[in-house]
Amino acid sequence: MQEDIIEKLIEQFRTLPGVGYKTAQRYAFSIIEGKNERAEKFADAIKEAKQKIGFCKVCGNFTDQEVCPICKSRNRKVICVVKEPKDILSMEKVKSYNGVYHVLFGTISPLEHRGPNDIKIKELLSRVQNDKVEEVIMATNPDVEGDATAMYIAKILKPLGVRVTRLAQGVAMGSDLEYADELTLSKALEARRDID
Amino acid sequence: MQEDIIEKLIEQFRTLPGVGYKTAQRYAFSIIEGKNERAEKFADAIKEAKQKIGFCKVCGNFTDQEVCPICKSRNRKVICVVKEPKDILSMEKVKSYNGVYHVLFGTISPLEHRGPNDIKIKELLSRVQNDKVEEVIMATNPDVEGDATAMYIAKILKPLGVRVTRLAQGVAMGSDLEYADELTLSKALEARRDID
Repeated sequence: MQEDIIEKLIEQFRTLPGVGYKTAQRYAFSIIEGKNERAEKFADAIKEAKQKIGFCKVCGNFTDQEVCPICKSRNRKVICVVKEPKDILSMEKVKSYNGVYHVLFGTISPLEHRGPNDIKIKELLSRVQNDKVEEVIMATNPDVEGDATAMYIAKILKPLGVRVTRLAQGVAMGSDLEYADELTLSKALEARRDID
Repeated sequence: MQEDIIEKLIEQFRTLPGVGYKTAQRYAFSIIEGKNERAEKFADAIKEAKQKIGFCKVCGNFTDQEVCPICKSRNRKVICVVKEPKDILSMEKVKSYNGVYHVLFGTISPLEHRGPNDIKIKELLSRVQNDKVEEVIMATNPDVEGDATAMYIAKILKPLGVRVTRLAQGVAMGSDLEYADELTLSKALEARRDID
């Protein structure tokens, strides 16, 4: 039956984050109505990405090599710690950063029964010791779990004489105070700086 | 380079309707972070749909056969005329409809240089004559082009003694009058019916 084949494709599109039935249907029709080469290319890109992209064995970044280009070429004395590989892409928009990364693959979350041993903290510790790291920048998300994880790691690393910093929290550039939430505003107020 | 492979996948997702860079990136990461089998299934579903699904040679519906199941099994005396194959899926939600369909693959649009000969009107005409059709329901979109196309086809078909009808236009069920546009309201008022 033709509907089963279309439904199968719709079901696949529904597995994408935030995609409901209607959207998945639109995507599926755009494939069916599109050119053959486009569907081929699309399918091949999915397979190729899944087959070739793995995680860097040093930092956990996405890569098709054993060690990612960032780890190979940049200053290993500064490590920016993130929750997920895709956070590296966000951080990389800050062109001035020349250090390396470390992906935790999660945050400490008692609610979800995820403790310090379930994320890559041990690996971070040994990198800090082996590479004589000078600064660890905690760039986990500014939420309860991200904060708790940052605090936990700071407590372990500080006795080793490493500087541990946290991304500043405050109002976003270009945003409107009217829409800033209470917590963000209170953090921004706490961390206020002199204008000189 | 790993980024090229990921970028290639992101570019493919961007070809889907309404998908910008950020969304495409989220989709791509969900593939890379997901299981191998999921990526395989996804890619295969795309290829299979594109390879096997074509158009019914009678009505233009999506099908993996020469003639679609609707054309094979339903009342051919009533034809519902739609603009695109996917409109059939919408109409099919109305479980009570037992007639067949005809896809025009477009509407008459002087602005886009699309005349009556550029859409499947000739094919409709020969179906009406060969199958002794009793009613043609024009279900093109309720916009300028859809209306014009419906009028044009009605003019051709009426001399053949076929009843030509148009989907009723009015306020949508469950909608709020406050948000109904002028044109819809005026159509709804024009076509008002006695309550008995």
